[in-house]
Amino acid sequence: MTITPQHLQYVLRLADTALILGQRNTEWCGHGPILEEDIALSNMSLDLIGQARLLYTHAAALEQQLTGKSRTEDDYAYFRAEREFANYTLAELPHYGPLAGTAQVEKDYAVTIVRNFLYSTLMAHLWSALTTSKDEQLAAIASKSIKETSYHVHHASEWLIRFGDGTDESHRRAQAALDYLLPYTREFFSADAVEETIAAAGIGPLTSDLEAAWFQDVQATLDEATLKLPEAVKHITTGKHGEHSEHMGFVLAEMQSLARQHPGATW
Amino acid sequence: MTITPQHLQYVLRLADTALILGQRNTEWCGHGPILEEDIALSNMSLDLIGQARLLYTHAAALEQQLTGKSRTEDDYAYFRAEREFANYTLAELPHYGPLAGTAQVEKDYAVTIVRNFLYSTLMAHLWSALTTSKDEQLAAIASKSIKETSYHVHHASEWLIRFGDGTDESHRRAQAALDYLLPYTREFFSADAVEETIAAAGIGPLTSDLEAAWFQDVQATLDEATLKLPEAVKHITTGKHGEHSEHMGFVLAEMQSLARQHPGATW
Repeated sequence: MTITPQHLQYVLRLADTALILGQRNTEWCGHGPILEEDIALSNMSLDLIGQARLLYTHAAALEQQLTGKSRTEDDYAYFRAEREFANYTLAELPHYGPLAGTAQVEKDYAVTIVRNFLYSTLMAHLWSALTTSKDEQLAAIASKSIKETSYHVHHASEWLIRFGDGTDESHRRAQAALDYLLPYTREFFSADAVEETIAAAGIGPLTSDLEAAWFQDVQATLDEATLKLPEAVKHITTGKHGEHSEHMGFVLAEMQSLARQHPGATW
Repeated sequence: MTITPQHLQYVLRLADTALILGQRNTEWCGHGPILEEDIALSNMSLDLIGQARLLYTHAAALEQQLTGKSRTEDDYAYFRAEREFANYTLAELPHYGPLAGTAQVEKDYAVTIVRNFLYSTLMAHLWSALTTSKDEQLAAIASKSIKETSYHVHHASEWLIRFGDGTDESHRRAQAALDYLLPYTREFFSADAVEETIAAAGIGPLTSDLEAAWFQDVQATLDEATLKLPEAVKHITTGKHGEHSEHMGFVLAEMQSLARQHPGATW
């Protein structure tokens, strides 16, 4: 298989989204609403960061073949600039969501759950498609990740139904989180040269080909949760092209500061 | 088996120390020096919090039989006051240790590692003794925990040797962390009415009976790490009696605030 820059970029997109969402979700570490949930969410963060590590290691091998440059998983995570991260914008958003600015709300669990739901539902379909990738290493990572992702979908769906079909307050917050986050999912399905190249090479699907199945799953859970799909918007976010929201810098500062204080340290 | 208040208190001591140290270590969650280490340390935190959950659930059953009072694991973790926590003082100390007040140091990984080393080495012996407890539930928890603890000892020892036998700076910091933390281990081995009661009932050992074996393990690793055991001190900390350091309030505030904002919420 001839390695293309688009192929490398595609793997980095997958890795970056997993890493940044995993990092965001670690903000709940030690601060969960109940012990059991604290542990469940932390474990799911570790799943995502683990997926990112596998993908970065694979990206490093691709980049080595493509350019001769040697990088490690830590180089990708800790020593790239904001513009070099290619995660979906959805992943970098803070947990307070639409409650920003209201009485001392730092994190809204409804935002956490709705985001995990929208993202993991996509990934269930995407990992499934990637198990037949012509990139065998990527196919192997997909096979491993799909099991973790099934649990993530299950976890987020259960909570979303409990919120939506719960008290007036939990319903209201879940609906607000959904209204806030759904527009960011447009970015999942917008095709570009990277996706067209990898689709033509049999490395991965056009994500737009997964949209109908994703939508069907989302709609089924929302129905059960008695939540309403907000109206479609036209704006498409651009995190995957390296153009991030104002929140991305804070995520990176949190994540990268220690490693950058001691560059090259082997500890 | 007749349940005694000392029996309940003994289980809570074990649970509280695991929870508070697990909570402290989650402060590294998403801020590790390298991705692999971030994940390893987070996983060990989850092990400790998982052990605490099992012990709290067991404590709840004991308390129910003893007093008729019904409590859950979350009640113990989130709705007790500082004086009711019976963890060793060692567990609640911040990660900055002896570097407090020096150039913006919030966390010193040497402190993290030395503490994990001293505590997990104790627990390897203690869980082993508890596998033959007359409290069968406690024996079962010990059997499960001993495997996790073996890995914790291995992890901390490897790092301690790498630090001690590493650069001048890493050696200096490891020695400073050891000098700072070792005095807190006196509390492990100070007998009191709780331990004497549970030892007489065959529920657990006198921890002082484990001291020689603990000391031998500690000394062997310190030798390999070229670190020196500091001189013994006479002062014995009193966390296990509910008298905590000035740091304990901050740990509890971090951990309990969210649950207390929504008391009784089922999420």
